[in-house]
Amino acid sequence: MNIALKRHSHVPVHEQISQYFIDRISSNMLKEREQLPSVRKLAKELGVALVTVQKAYQQLQQKGYVESFQGKGIFVKKRAPLDPAPFDTEWQMLVSDYVPRAQSLAIFQPLRSIRYNLATACLHGDLFHMDWIRETTVRALEKQPQLLSQYSSANGDGEFRKAVSDYLRSKHLSVPPEHIVATSGTQQGIELVAKTFVGPNDVVLMEAPTYPGSIDIFRARGAQIIPIPVEQDGIDTKTLLRICDQYHPKLLYTNPTFQNPTGTTLSLKKRKELVDIAESYHFLIVEDDPWSELYFDAPPPPPIKSFDKSGHVIYLKGFSKFLSPACRMGALVAEGRLLEKLIAAKSISDLGSPLLPQKIVASLLQSEQLNPFLQYLRRQLKQQEKCCVELLQEKMPSLTFRRADGGSILWIKLPHPVDADVLLEQAHLHELSFLSGSACFPIHVPNQYIRLSFAGVPIHELKQAIERLCYVLCTLQTKNEIEQFPSF
Amino acid sequence: MNIALKRHSHVPVHEQISQYFIDRISSNMLKEREQLPSVRKLAKELGVALVTVQKAYQQLQQKGYVESFQGKGIFVKKRAPLDPAPFDTEWQMLVSDYVPRAQSLAIFQPLRSIRYNLATACLHGDLFHMDWIRETTVRALEKQPQLLSQYSSANGDGEFRKAVSDYLRSKHLSVPPEHIVATSGTQQGIELVAKTFVGPNDVVLMEAPTYPGSIDIFRARGAQIIPIPVEQDGIDTKTLLRICDQYHPKLLYTNPTFQNPTGTTLSLKKRKELVDIAESYHFLIVEDDPWSELYFDAPPPPPIKSFDKSGHVIYLKGFSKFLSPACRMGALVAEGRLLEKLIAAKSISDLGSPLLPQKIVASLLQSEQLNPFLQYLRRQLKQQEKCCVELLQEKMPSLTFRRADGGSILWIKLPHPVDADVLLEQAHLHELSFLSGSACFPIHVPNQYIRLSFAGVPIHELKQAIERLCYVLCTLQTKNEIEQFPSF
Repeated sequence: MNIALKRHSHVPVHEQISQYFIDRISSNMLKEREQLPSVRKLAKELGVALVTVQKAYQQLQQKGYVESFQGKGIFVKKRAPLDPAPFDTEWQMLVSDYVPRAQSLAIFQPLRSIRYNLATACLHGDLFHMDWIRETTVRALEKQPQLLSQYSSANGDGEFRKAVSDYLRSKHLSVPPEHIVATSGTQQGIELVAKTFVGPNDVVLMEAPTYPGSIDIFRARGAQIIPIPVEQDGIDTKTLLRICDQYHPKLLYTNPTFQNPTGTTLSLKKRKELVDIAESYHFLIVEDDPWSELYFDAPPPPPIKSFDKSGHVIYLKGFSKFLSPACRMGALVAEGRLLEKLIAAKSISDLGSPLLPQKIVASLLQSEQLNPFLQYLRRQLKQQEKCCVELLQEKMPSLTFRRADGGSILWIKLPHPVDADVLLEQAHLHELSFLSGSACFPIHVPNQYIRLSFAGVPIHELKQAIERLCYVLCTLQTKNEIEQFPSF
Repeated sequence: MNIALKRHSHVPVHEQISQYFIDRISSNMLKEREQLPSVRKLAKELGVALVTVQKAYQQLQQKGYVESFQGKGIFVKKRAPLDPAPFDTEWQMLVSDYVPRAQSLAIFQPLRSIRYNLATACLHGDLFHMDWIRETTVRALEKQPQLLSQYSSANGDGEFRKAVSDYLRSKHLSVPPEHIVATSGTQQGIELVAKTFVGPNDVVLMEAPTYPGSIDIFRARGAQIIPIPVEQDGIDTKTLLRICDQYHPKLLYTNPTFQNPTGTTLSLKKRKELVDIAESYHFLIVEDDPWSELYFDAPPPPPIKSFDKSGHVIYLKGFSKFLSPACRMGALVAEGRLLEKLIAAKSISDLGSPLLPQKIVASLLQSEQLNPFLQYLRRQLKQQEKCCVELLQEKMPSLTFRRADGGSILWIKLPHPVDADVLLEQAHLHELSFLSGSACFPIHVPNQYIRLSFAGVPIHELKQAIERLCYVLCTLQTKNEIEQFPSF
């Protein structure tokens, strides 16, 4: 067990231990029926009192994650029949590892018999102008016949970085190509920052809720994660200031535009405020920006990075959401020593992203058809959102949510006492999937939110998908009401 | 300073500290003229005695890495004029990071005015059948018109994994597609294993010398690295056994076929022996195999993995050396819990490799033209090696090296007292580059080896390149002799 305990943290040690197991069980890395180490063994290994581990295990039991069998031990609770192990790898159970949570794996895992996928925040294939993307690819290959025999440098292809620099200027962000690093998606961008600057004992601030993949990353670095609430106009800067006075944060990860999963957008005022706070307390801001071009009406404020004059903001732009997902390209913007260290980390990770995807995305970014395509996407997504929202309001007026200003997701509060995981289990039986909100919190919370992606299915199927969701939810609510008022 | 000190290691603490700085200076992460922390400050930060840091700094000074200025402090030694800093990022110097070494960045960095690149172990573009690769790519795009709008799953595309499984069978390695994970090059494969299973205090065994990029990775995880010598028939298993008795290794990283950089191949007997040793001591073997198809005469023995019945070997196959470098594809083979954890780590790293490169490499692997192409490559490389070796033997009979049986590199011992770094500096002035051997050792050693890549330049330029090298070497030797016998 590589549980990075923080002994001087405000989170009690027994809760840190139970959180570790909750992460592993939720992301299916600890399998059903798997045995947890004995209280005595774990206490010895972690150098804590027996009662601390006992408390942690009691908590896990109370929350329904594990069950105890007299004389046998403590086991992950059974949920479904297990597949037989394909290989005799008993000894492998003893090889300790450093990956405590893989929520995004659980989300992206191919779901058997799921017809309506509202779980992954990706655009459905129908939304892409495939001919344009394919022809641009073929032309890139024709233009540079030697292309496929070449490597990219660690920081990325010069043409790609130039194209990104030009593109970012249209977003009021002026950065030279030398400050840009090509990454394999923003997921890799976040991971590069984490592996370079975050280790055990380092304090990381995250919005709560936030993008699940980012929690996976900082957990795997053993960071001390402090959640900061999200308000209607983005992260709560008052709480942020209070936390900064109390701790020495190394880094704040934020998703300021059409935030994943709440859909909120950080106001212009707060963007400037964030830069000021980072400068005062000398922490890094990681600005993750996958959605900002996909607004419905008015464009969002410029990136936080555009107000940064001192190099405190590391900006991440993802292209795979709207340009050739099969290329999985992203870009990272930083300056000075931070940039140098990030390029070193990138070279350690993979020696540089593959060249072909960089050339394709560069060509798409330089294409005259880019703007018409983005305009088309905005119209389509707005229409999908409208269809989704109107249906939800009609069928389930009891649901609480805020309409999105862009992007592809809705964050919905379920009516009490429906549990999101129970709802998801029922939905799967009806070939429907969404994201259970608990994956988006860096701490364990009551599970009363769900995230719906309205861009993940074609519009002609969206109506059926939402109707199914409402049906499942109604059934569950009725069932809950009956259970709450038993007839005996 | 995130120096992961191992207080019970056989390496004295002052040497661990000086090694940390040697790594950073050698890979240019600590720049010339940059100031080291004061003895007092570093001692306090690391919780060690003043005299320990003093000893480390003395060692650095003796080895020529730093210089001390009375009353000012200790600075990295000046080697060349510095570029002015483009951005005011003074404060960034204080942001500590976790990347102690980036030797592969130093190797892959674009070298200004280098005409003859014998430094990177890659095949020159002229060696590829570009039409075949390009046409295969275009056909893949035509066959699946929706391809570019799709993501890969975290473990990789099914078609890619099937193609790799079929290909590996031809190498006497029978593994089902489910045991295969697509990676962005083997560099990412090594890093996945390291980030999953290696952390501070974990003992990692490495061949000495070994592939520089792998040292970068394990250093960044804070591992305790123990070097094992390489003999004519591969790693020295007697020393390995002795080390295993003394320590509890978690992992052995090996490059058994046409080893980078020595070119040696692990014998069949030792391959089986390695599996036995790993089973006895329950450590993981990471088998990195980028070259095995590029033999000159007889094919090498089957992979170590083919003798593994208990899942102790994680096998890494790289494809970017000989199939479309611009795709940067590799594959990882593992079983059971190890595999599950590695897939979780992969999802954290980048949610899965880009789909397009996977589809291209899958098509190339399935192509009937693959075998004729590999046969052609073998002939070409054999010819390049012959040309290189004959010229070296003719011009510099004093050089010691062993002929390669495959791959693209020669490992050469320089005549005493020529220092590889000094030679490299001179070579750069003659538009020539190679790899200085010190990059290949996990510990600091006298710098008397160089690695030449005979595949990195077209054959018609190889002769000139080697002649220049011999010229530079002769000049330096003569100069050294004169200096050794001064005329006064």
